[in-house]
Amino acid sequence: MAEPIFRRLALLGIGLIGSSVARIVRERGDIAAELVANARTQSTLDRVMQLGIADRVELDPARAVEGADCVMLCAPVGAYEALAAAIAPHLAPGAILTDVGSTKQSVIRDVGPLVPAGVHFVPAHPVAGTEYSGPDAGFTTLFQGRWCLLTPPAGTDETAVEKIAELWRRCGSMVEAMEPAHHDRVLAIVSHLPHLIAFTICGTADDLEGESRQQVLQFAASGFRDFTRIAASDPVMWRDVFLNNREALLEMLQRFMEDAQAMARAVRWGDATYIEDRILRGRVIRRSLIEMKQA
Amino acid sequence: MAEPIFRRLALLGIGLIGSSVARIVRERGDIAAELVANARTQSTLDRVMQLGIADRVELDPARAVEGADCVMLCAPVGAYEALAAAIAPHLAPGAILTDVGSTKQSVIRDVGPLVPAGVHFVPAHPVAGTEYSGPDAGFTTLFQGRWCLLTPPAGTDETAVEKIAELWRRCGSMVEAMEPAHHDRVLAIVSHLPHLIAFTICGTADDLEGESRQQVLQFAASGFRDFTRIAASDPVMWRDVFLNNREALLEMLQRFMEDAQAMARAVRWGDATYIEDRILRGRVIRRSLIEMKQA
Repeated sequence: MAEPIFRRLALLGIGLIGSSVARIVRERGDIAAELVANARTQSTLDRVMQLGIADRVELDPARAVEGADCVMLCAPVGAYEALAAAIAPHLAPGAILTDVGSTKQSVIRDVGPLVPAGVHFVPAHPVAGTEYSGPDAGFTTLFQGRWCLLTPPAGTDETAVEKIAELWRRCGSMVEAMEPAHHDRVLAIVSHLPHLIAFTICGTADDLEGESRQQVLQFAASGFRDFTRIAASDPVMWRDVFLNNREALLEMLQRFMEDAQAMARAVRWGDATYIEDRILRGRVIRRSLIEMKQA
Repeated sequence: MAEPIFRRLALLGIGLIGSSVARIVRERGDIAAELVANARTQSTLDRVMQLGIADRVELDPARAVEGADCVMLCAPVGAYEALAAAIAPHLAPGAILTDVGSTKQSVIRDVGPLVPAGVHFVPAHPVAGTEYSGPDAGFTTLFQGRWCLLTPPAGTDETAVEKIAELWRRCGSMVEAMEPAHHDRVLAIVSHLPHLIAFTICGTADDLEGESRQQVLQFAASGFRDFTRIAASDPVMWRDVFLNNREALLEMLQRFMEDAQAMARAVRWGDATYIEDRILRGRVIRRSLIEMKQA
């Protein structure tokens, strides 16, 4: 077995992503020799100990990061600034601070200025997830064959970046570096907008009057069901993602709304050619995905 | 084995739905004693014979329906009017004419006036499907546990309605009668709007400039992928559905757009409470679905 990359890894937040990392760390043994988990509530930490997925739990994030050579923020991105402020004075010199957030410009904006000199800050985003959340939701194959995008600010220590890249490779990910603004734009269309749309259409359906609403549930097969699956995702996490990728999300939503309006107009005026052309575009994308084995 | 319901069943169109019905008819033996398939092209009919899922194929719909005591329209709903006009003079007295279209008011509008006296017209909609199409796409369990909605016009012969209900029960469906306008409204939100949205967002992504578009494909996991699956569905079928459920689809799309605009506004102004509330609505719907075992 390879030498563990880290002596002690502290996970701040132990939901779907954090608890998947924890399970992999425990199973492999070559990522970190010791694992400390922190969460907002004692009941989550009690559950973590029951599950046996951490060596130690700490309710105080400052205590959790003490002596850790790697600290990973696994909480909703809206909680990062307060967390970073709480742990900054307690980070060990030379430690690496990383994260798993779905927005990267906001993380650099909120956390960057609080990182003490001598601590290396390597923002990361494992592009993986399910609609389940909490410490019970994690599993060891979550990142298998999925991308992990690193967005280190210019001048970040290369050894630190490589250690985080290696951590994710050992978790099963393919690792790629990306410019933070570009990351936020791409994720806005592939992930944040689809989630916003899924939440919205479920809300639209929920607003229907009595009988129709009941029948929405009854006949949810074919189409709507897939949206409800996406829409079952963690509310706080997604609220924070939307608020922290505002510019890119609003731009993509604007483009989508224009396209939806154009479809509405084509339906109203019976423009069969336009409708068919737009439908065919979707199939092209799907075929490309299948060829790239991402479907 | 029970007596077959029909002596001869003619399927006009043999794609995902038609070929699934054909496979079930062949497998069970208690739905129709003889099965005739019609399609628009000889190559589709050749494939049907290769697959061995019909007793006889006919390129001319008028010949296909001759002597059949049940005729089922399984083509895109936009083709119904011309099909009905072509077969009307050749329908056997006492025969049942039914269909599988996703829109029901348009079917009654287009086909109803062409049905000869003495022929029973029983519009039906099996609410089931996949993103695949064509005679190879069908399978015998497609309708298992799914609803089939019947929308017979007032005064339709009850024996005819019961025969079609029994046909679908033998296909594995749960059968329910519904008022056509109400059907179109409910399906607009559970199926037609989700498809329109999925096609649209795939088009929006396809319109992005070079590098971003490439990365949409690369990072399609979590969210976007589910939309591309829906968007892979048959273009002609869906074009026809949109054009033939115009009023209800435009109303639901309008409601959805208002809700999406409200979400955009909440994101722009940082209204965390509103966003979280709307996300939670989606989860309620999902939970109800799981309780109803429709998820």
